[in-house]
Amino acid sequence: MKLDQNLNILIVGLGLMGGSYAAALTKQGYRVSAVDPDADAIAWAKDNGLIAVGATEPETELLYNADLVVFAVYPHILLPWIEQHQKELMPGAVLTDVTGVKSCFLYDVQAKLRPDLEFIAAHPMAGREVSGVKNSDPSIFCDANYIVVPTDANTFSAIQLCKSLGETLGFKRISSLPPKAHDEMIGFVSQLTHMIAVCLMTCSKSEHLVDYTGDSFRDLTRIARINEDMWSELFLLNKEALLQQMEKFSAEFDLLYRMLKEEDAEGLKEKMRRSTSRRALFDTEKKENAL
Amino acid sequence: MKLDQNLNILIVGLGLMGGSYAAALTKQGYRVSAVDPDADAIAWAKDNGLIAVGATEPETELLYNADLVVFAVYPHILLPWIEQHQKELMPGAVLTDVTGVKSCFLYDVQAKLRPDLEFIAAHPMAGREVSGVKNSDPSIFCDANYIVVPTDANTFSAIQLCKSLGETLGFKRISSLPPKAHDEMIGFVSQLTHMIAVCLMTCSKSEHLVDYTGDSFRDLTRIARINEDMWSELFLLNKEALLQQMEKFSAEFDLLYRMLKEEDAEGLKEKMRRSTSRRALFDTEKKENAL
Repeated sequence: MKLDQNLNILIVGLGLMGGSYAAALTKQGYRVSAVDPDADAIAWAKDNGLIAVGATEPETELLYNADLVVFAVYPHILLPWIEQHQKELMPGAVLTDVTGVKSCFLYDVQAKLRPDLEFIAAHPMAGREVSGVKNSDPSIFCDANYIVVPTDANTFSAIQLCKSLGETLGFKRISSLPPKAHDEMIGFVSQLTHMIAVCLMTCSKSEHLVDYTGDSFRDLTRIARINEDMWSELFLLNKEALLQQMEKFSAEFDLLYRMLKEEDAEGLKEKMRRSTSRRALFDTEKKENAL
Repeated sequence: MKLDQNLNILIVGLGLMGGSYAAALTKQGYRVSAVDPDADAIAWAKDNGLIAVGATEPETELLYNADLVVFAVYPHILLPWIEQHQKELMPGAVLTDVTGVKSCFLYDVQAKLRPDLEFIAAHPMAGREVSGVKNSDPSIFCDANYIVVPTDANTFSAIQLCKSLGETLGFKRISSLPPKAHDEMIGFVSQLTHMIAVCLMTCSKSEHLVDYTGDSFRDLTRIARINEDMWSELFLLNKEALLQQMEKFSAEFDLLYRMLKEEDAEGLKEKMRRSTSRRALFDTEKKENAL
């Protein structure tokens, strides 16, 4: 189900993600406004038709008219912003976000929120290797997952509204997970893989290996080009879950190491058969999506 | 420089790699023969114009007429084959191979070879995820590396002949490495990456994660679909080099783990900056090749 066309949507933070949300929603006829301290970002977004109205300060009129507020900012900005400005929001407004980790701030935000407002968390699993509103591109949502992350504090109607937002933005698959399960999943499929890619690039003096790299090494290290400020913050915010995933990986890696050392060919083969059959599931999945 | 057109080339082992060599060389007008115990493989290769002549047994006439013999078989087959049949080869014939690991058999082969023959090792870093002569495809060489692996036992002229073979096959880049350096490099760029991919698929109960995987996880596990017989043999044959690479990776991974645990944001950022700059070299390289 798509969002109600009459909703006024306010984007807080007009970077790559906020800009892509704005572009996708404006294109479909929604009235989108934005707040961002960067005057150039606001001007560019207005000039290029991404938003109808924008301001560098959270002006009362913009805030009070928003039915749905999307926070496309870092968690360390989100909580203080809400504490400072929530008094200006319309009663009944729904708030959501785009943050890649949840437990670290979500319960705090919900605890401090005015009782007539509701914050429902969402994680759009999309992005680009460039940043800023000028690189906005709503097509990044087409092949991506959108995860709604409700807590006990959320109502059915806000959860449905949040799912409708994901559908309106054009995400391929909408699902939902509790905060802890979400953070564990992200610790595994996203953060652990980035740690491994970085580790592969730094564990050996690898510069001279450019001459010999095949597709395997290129595949495993593509994501080793990484925005160090954003990723170190995300890692630290999800510290416990990521540490746990790293421990599991290490234990399994040590087991494979011992199998090789002890020449346990059958043990290695069994692991390879398991990895092959599990990975095959992904390809089946991909094929089905392509149909 | 391309190979002399008058050379008679014999392929021993007509699987995916032997078949792709045969196809590439026949296409360019070379006279290619093959020996393989599989009668179907030989018949198919003749019917489809990959080879001029073939036999299921190493017949004296085929062997004696070969100027260049390419072994496209596993190392455990290579050495016994040479011990049994080298007496039938033409004086001055040059022998080469396609094996992915070298130290484990190369010195033995060279030590046991008739003094008037020469074995010069080569590693075509190409392949497909399917096997058998019917999947032969000489286009797999176009974007790939070909590494000549000489020892002190090799002559300048055989090394040049082996490089010419790589050029004739159409490899993008021809280079050379000593056996130990080759095996270390392979332990790192190919075997370690396959170990990691397998480990990622087996370290966690990951079946249900199909719903949430993004490109990162897919990239890092593409090679987790693996032929367990071939890869366990290659791992064990290169055991020492691979164990060493796994140790280096583990030590670095432990360091990243400790940095995260101790919330050493600056340490993590420094690692990310290093990985980013090293990985950027690969992309520059790729761009240059694309020009």
